[in-house]
Formats: sequence, structure tokens, C-alpha cells
Amino acid sequence: MAKSWVNLAERIGADLHLELTGKGGRRAALTRALREAVRSGRLAPGSRLPPYRSLAADLGLARNTVADAYAELVAEGWLTALQGSGTRVADRVEPSLPRRSPRLEPSPVGGRRPAKTGRPVHNLRQGQPDASSFPRASWLASARRAVTAAPNEAFGPGDPRGRPELRHALAEYLARTRGVRTAPGRIVVCSGFAHALRLLFGGRVLRGPLAVEGYGLAFHRGLLSQAGIRTRPLTVDGDGARVDELTGRERAVLLTPAHQFPTGGPLPARRRTAAVDWARSSDGLVLEDDYDGEFRYDRRPIGALQGLDPDRVIYIGSVSKSLSPAVRLGWMVLPDHLVDGVLAAKGEREAWAGVLDQLTLADFLASGSYDRHVRRMRQRYRARRDRFVTALAEHAPHVHVTGIAAGLHAVLRLPAGTEATTVDAATRAGIALDGLSSFRHPDAPFPPEDGLVVGYATPPDHAVEAALNAILRILPPRAPDQHRL
Amino acid sequence: MAKSWVNLAERIGADLHLELTGKGGRRAALTRALREAVRSGRLAPGSRLPPYRSLAADLGLARNTVADAYAELVAEGWLTALQGSGTRVADRVEPSLPRRSPRLEPSPVGGRRPAKTGRPVHNLRQGQPDASSFPRASWLASARRAVTAAPNEAFGPGDPRGRPELRHALAEYLARTRGVRTAPGRIVVCSGFAHALRLLFGGRVLRGPLAVEGYGLAFHRGLLSQAGIRTRPLTVDGDGARVDELTGRERAVLLTPAHQFPTGGPLPARRRTAAVDWARSSDGLVLEDDYDGEFRYDRRPIGALQGLDPDRVIYIGSVSKSLSPAVRLGWMVLPDHLVDGVLAAKGEREAWAGVLDQLTLADFLASGSYDRHVRRMRQRYRARRDRFVTALAEHAPHVHVTGIAAGLHAVLRLPAGTEATTVDAATRAGIALDGLSSFRHPDAPFPPEDGLVVGYATPPDHAVEAALNAILRILPPRAPDQHRL
Repeated sequence: MAKSWVNLAERIGADLHLELTGKGGRRAALTRALREAVRSGRLAPGSRLPPYRSLAADLGLARNTVADAYAELVAEGWLTALQGSGTRVADRVEPSLPRRSPRLEPSPVGGRRPAKTGRPVHNLRQGQPDASSFPRASWLASARRAVTAAPNEAFGPGDPRGRPELRHALAEYLARTRGVRTAPGRIVVCSGFAHALRLLFGGRVLRGPLAVEGYGLAFHRGLLSQAGIRTRPLTVDGDGARVDELTGRERAVLLTPAHQFPTGGPLPARRRTAAVDWARSSDGLVLEDDYDGEFRYDRRPIGALQGLDPDRVIYIGSVSKSLSPAVRLGWMVLPDHLVDGVLAAKGEREAWAGVLDQLTLADFLASGSYDRHVRRMRQRYRARRDRFVTALAEHAPHVHVTGIAAGLHAVLRLPAGTEATTVDAATRAGIALDGLSSFRHPDAPFPPEDGLVVGYATPPDHAVEAALNAILRILPPRAPDQHRL
Repeated sequence: MAKSWVNLAERIGADLHLELTGKGGRRAALTRALREAVRSGRLAPGSRLPPYRSLAADLGLARNTVADAYAELVAEGWLTALQGSGTRVADRVEPSLPRRSPRLEPSPVGGRRPAKTGRPVHNLRQGQPDASSFPRASWLASARRAVTAAPNEAFGPGDPRGRPELRHALAEYLARTRGVRTAPGRIVVCSGFAHALRLLFGGRVLRGPLAVEGYGLAFHRGLLSQAGIRTRPLTVDGDGARVDELTGRERAVLLTPAHQFPTGGPLPARRRTAAVDWARSSDGLVLEDDYDGEFRYDRRPIGALQGLDPDRVIYIGSVSKSLSPAVRLGWMVLPDHLVDGVLAAKGEREAWAGVLDQLTLADFLASGSYDRHVRRMRQRYRARRDRFVTALAEHAPHVHVTGIAAGLHAVLRLPAGTEATTVDAATRAGIALDGLSSFRHPDAPFPPEDGLVVGYATPPDHAVEAALNAILRILPPRAPDQHRL
């Protein structure tokens, strides 16, 4: 039986224990122990190791075992073996590794804010579905069926269009629930809405200038400007974007027709048709961001604008709101003439969207699990919205709520000049949310409005009550000029 | 009981059947049927619909059901409702959708070649593990454990570093099997090697000029030039890259130390240490592409170069070769001072690497399934390599084989001037593979060499024999000038 360690003090002037433990057999253990000794500095640079015969004898190992370990560490550069001078510790080995300080780890909430502000007590940041509602069991059931049934080629290099199973399931689902007119060959899978923007504009499939809604995500504006795309904001009023402000100068317009983000409200029929008419008359395109079209509460969802003209509208969706942002899957439904350009921008192989998630989502859609999940969440979110609106009407009747017919968030309209102080109060109260002004395009052709964007879908059920009560406590009092309302 | 269809001929002059079938109840079925009728042109633009009272009577539906369906289609822009003139089909609805022709679907092999060349009989393209060997059962077992045990916040917005479970598992695995010196805080998860390059160079974390090996993937050269990075090729000889050609001008060098891609062979110890010395003396960085370091056949894998100096080497790996390119996961092990820059380039939230795959891979690593899979595949690939080398020695002794000590491919050295014709012969024989010249940097400081890069790992076991025999048949005969060898 071999000794588990040897004291090499008398051999190399270092009080060195070699612990021969761990996986992979004796040679692996010895190699690891020697490497660790060099790394940690317990074996000093330049120090000579015992001849492998002697170390083998000390450790009760075969000579070849020690010789192989030395050879391996020489090959890795830890040791040097020079004719005549035996085996020595190499000179250039670094002292052991400094660890990053843990305070640099970002907050678990997920990075919309600098990590230094720490984790909030109440997370009401918009755009996040209730993470505690992820359908783990049905998703795993779909994964089991899909991964078991997949053809071998599914585990090879991926088709940049996305898996055919998923594109077929999406074509059926989007036609049935969103009125999207498409065929699997016009669908390109991506990792989310931001990836779609990168492919379309970063990939030079589309050029600017791009008309956008005067309210939207700063993150998307940033992506577009990174890609060198100039954005021209449209006025947003109670009926959404003023598409009548479109001119012949823009190449495309980015809209959220199902539910203007974040102020709420579907784009009315006359504006939908006006947008399509503009695209036809100016040879432009409409980008439809259908980020939460499935969550409409007071009537059936309004179908996608894309259905009016599939050759003038790029429809973009993802599972980030309907299922979870942890599943990095989105899709573009493209006019035929844009498909090849998008695929060229995406690359020769699927480099982004995980194929196993694609197969799983295809089964999740085809088996009806996706419909069931959306229906369940729609009911849950509607109930939350109703509680929230009722509580506001009771405790803060002077605060008007908009954008509540659909989606995962509401907008609380605040008295002029009170947004900044209210957001500060929220932060101090441990509430994570955003002010309406942070969504306003810097060049928006309308004055800033004060408001809060409250993501009531975000907390788990048990935490909703406390979060909404916390909001009520930090709302500003009725402003003098509001008495007239 | 309602009639399933109604003939509206007498009402609107169209022989129209409305099929009230499918999911979602009567109103949904009616809405869908009317939308389909408008889409297909069976309801002509401008034609007037019956008053909803009459249609309700014809169909045996409640009036509100029909009224709601009309209202929804008006909101979607399919119908128009004008005071006095009733409800009409809108004017701007397109004829039904043309489908893309199927010939545009790319080849199932996975897009390294234009799809038009069709699917090869024998796929021996390098860089693809045997897709039939994906460990479906153990992967699904890890998915079940990981997704069931994950905390709720895992289904919220993702940490751009990657899941802590995965970074901890990788830190342990890479230290144990590859001699990588790291801590979880220095690991950033990405979707593969190409994504790592995009983040480092496209994200302006690193600048050029970048020294690269004279042989490498054209795809990577393309990515770098897209990012505006100038590459300076190093000579590649039998010992890999000539790092002594590095100067003070380059900011970094990209190496494949475990197995020069694609010519094979590990970088010798003296060149490893020389590369690190260069980085230290010129304030440069070494990018270590450890794309197949786990597959070394004739002795234990050589540890990562990164272990020599974690503050000068960026170690990059992925599961594309070891597991499957279908799982879009890779990792960067970074010097401490680069972590924040890479995270800034990646964005505030995880937008790329699927979190469920990350959780699953963490369990797959921690449970030992990854080790078992790599061990199993190493044995399988070694056996293939041995069969291949034996067959070549027997049937084509004049063809020298290199790069066979490790990895998933071999390089067959061909007589000068015979590569192009041999690759053509292979294509005609239904063999998909690449000529060595397609991997040569256009500015490489050495003359082109003729060869074939044969991915013997790619076919399923049952197809290997036939594929290798097919290669033997298209190899060029001994060249006159080879008799002297």
C-alpha cells in the first residue's frame, strides 16, 4: 500500500506534503499534488525535484508513474528537465490566484440596475413574468418527449433558421392565436427581441432612419445607435403611436401594436391600416414588437398587425414575457425577400438559440402546454391587476392608472414634477421600479410626463400584497392643481 | 345545436362556407372563419357582411357572439364598420400568402457548404462530434434534477456572468481536468467560441492587431475582420505556432495549444512558456482556444496553457466538440481586470446562453456524467482513428497522416498540386470534407500545403467504415517525386 504523502524536506529543503488523493488513479493524484505544490509556491521556482526513482521509492509507486507525472508537468511548463541538472520547478510560475471580491457579483434581480443598490425588498420592475410560475413539470415533460424523439442530426450543427419542428409549431400557433400569416420557411428563430434587432440592423438587413415610438426601452434605443441607426420618435398619445407623423424619410417603423410599451393600449384599427399604407406607399417596413400580445384581459387578444400585409411587416415575438427570459428563444416572421438576408446575418450554423430548448418549445406548443400556461398566467395576472386597481382607487384616487387592459405592468400617472422624488422614495422603501421618464425618447416631440411603470406580474403571488401596499405608501399626495379634476 | 357552416351566397353574393371548428369556442371559431374567408379572398374587399343579427340567426349563435367577432375583426383591420353602411370587408387586405420554395431549405448537414450541393453520403467535415452519441438519457436526468431544484429566481432575468451553479462546476472541472487556475467570479458563460470572440473584440474589450496561427478557421478570421481587427498570421510547423515570430506590435495572440487546429500536435513546453513570456514582456494577452483539449488519445491530456499565468491568458472552451453544438454553451476564464469589460459588452441581462441548459450542464458536470461521456467518446474516437490510420497505412502508404494524437480529425498530406482535384473527387463521391488550404490564412508566411482535413468523429459508428473506404478510393496515387521518400 502506498503512503498517502511524503515529506520532501530533506530532499528539496521544503516542508512538503504530497497528498495522493482524488480521482483518476495514482499518476493523476501525484501530478495534481505536484502541480498544486508548484502553484501554491510550496515548491519554489528553480528548486530541484528528487530523481523520480527516489520519489517512487518514497511513495511506493512504480517508477514509470513518477516519470510520467514529471513528463506531464514538464509538457505543461510547470517543471523543466535539463540534461545534467535534473528536474526543476520552472521559473515563471505565478503565485496562487487572487479571487474576485464578492461585492462585484451582480444583484440576483437581474441587472437592470447597478448591482451596488443591492437586492430590493419588492421587485416591481416591468417586463418580468412571475419567475415562481415557470411550468417546470410540463416543460420537463416536453423536454423528455422532444429530446427522446429527436433525430440524431438534431444534435449536430444547427440550422440557422431554427429547428423545423419549432418553425412549424410556431406557424400554427401564431396563426391561430395572433392572426399571423406565415409559413415555416418565413420564420427565423433567434434568442430574443434584442437578437432580432441586432440581426436586422447590425446585420445591415435594414437601414435607418427608423421611426420609433416616443416611449420605449432605452436598451433597444442603445442597441440601434450602436448599430449606427438613427431613430426618429413618434408622438405617443392615448391611442398609441401617431403613425400619421411618418414621412417618406424613414425606412421602417418599430411599433408595439398590441400594447404600446409602456404606456399601454392597443393601436386602433385606423392607425394599424395607416401604418401599413405608409409602408406600401413609401416602400417601407413595419417592425411589430408583439412582446406581450397574449396577455389581454378584458377581451380576446387583438390579432397581429402583420396579418394585414405579411410582405410589409416583420413580426417579432419571444417567450420572455409569456414563459420566462431564462429560455432564450424568440422568432421573426419575415417578408419572403428578407429571409435570406437575415440568415446571412445569422451565420452558416446556429450559433445562438439552443437546439434542445427549440425542440422542447416545439413540443410545448404542439402539446397545448403553452396555451394552458398562457391561459393560467392571464387569469393570475388579471387578478393581480384588479387588486392593484381597486387598491389604488381606494387609497390614491388622485393617481390615474393607464395601460391596464393588457400586459404585465401598469402606468401610474403622477402629478407634474413628482416622479423623481417618488422613484427615490420607492428605492428607499426597497421597491424596484422605473419612472415613466426613463422610457421617453430624448428627442420625443412631446413634453415629459410624470409616472411610475409598475410591473405587477413580477413578484411571486405571496409577495404581491406587500409590494402593492408598499407602493401605496410612497405615492405623492394629491397636488393642489388636481383638485380641479 | 349550431350549424357548422352557413351559405352566405344570397346575402353577400359569395359562395361562402364558414366552418365553425377548432379550439377556443364559438366566437373564436367564427372570428377565425371570417378572417380566413377575408384572407383567402372568398370575401372580396369592400363586400358587405350581413347584419350580425341575421348571421347569428343563420348560425344559431348568440347575437353578442357575432357582434364580438365583427368588432374584433374591425379592431384588427380586416373589416370596417361605418355609420350607415354597415360592416364591410376592408380594402387593403392582401391575397393569401405565397410560400417559400422548399429548395431554399439548407442541407441537414448543417450549413458549412451552400445548401445547393445537397446532402453528402459521407459527412467527414471536421469539428463535429458524432451526433448519434449525444447522451440523451443522462442529459435528461440532469435536466430533471436541475430544473426541479433550481431556485425561482433562476427563471427570472439571467445574470450575464452565467448561473453560479455552472461557474462553480466549471471552475472545479477545468482545474481538475485541464489544469486551469480560476475562480467562479472569473468565468463568464457565453454561447460558444464565436460568441467569446465577438464579446472580446466586437465589444472592444481587446484591440488588434491580433497574432493568429497561420492555419485556423476562416469563419473566425471573418468574425475578427468584421470587428475591424487586423490579424497577423504566425508560421505553423510540426510543433504548432512559431510564437518566436511575435513582436511588440501585436496586442494579443490566439493559439490552440492543446492541438493546433487543424494540423494537430500540442504546443511544446518551450513555446508555451515563450508565449507567456511574450505576453508579460509586451503587456499582451494570450487567447487559448481549448476546443478539443479533452480528446487526447495516447497519454493524459496536456493541461491548459492558462495555468502558467491566469492574468495573461484568456482560456476559452465550449461543449461544441465534447458534447454537442446543439447545446449553445461556452465559457471564458478571464484575467480579473477583463471581467467587468466583458460583462459590459455582454449586456445587463443574459440575452444569449439559455439558463435551463446552464443549470443542466452544471448538474451534468457535478454528477460526473460529463466525465463519463468524455471518457466514452475518447475511447470511441480513438478506435476510429486507429482503424483509419491502419487502413491508410495499408492502402495508401504514400499518404502521410498528421494531427492524430488528439481531437476529432486527421490531416492527410497529399502530393503537391493534388488537393483541389482530390476535394472535387470527394464531392463527386458524396464525401463532405475540407481541403487543408481552406484553413490557411491568406497572408500566412509559408507556402500552401496540399492536404485533406478528415473529421472521422462526425459519422455515426455504423457509417464510419463506408466513409473511410470512400476516402481511400479518391486519394491520389503516389506522386513520382515521392519515390524518394
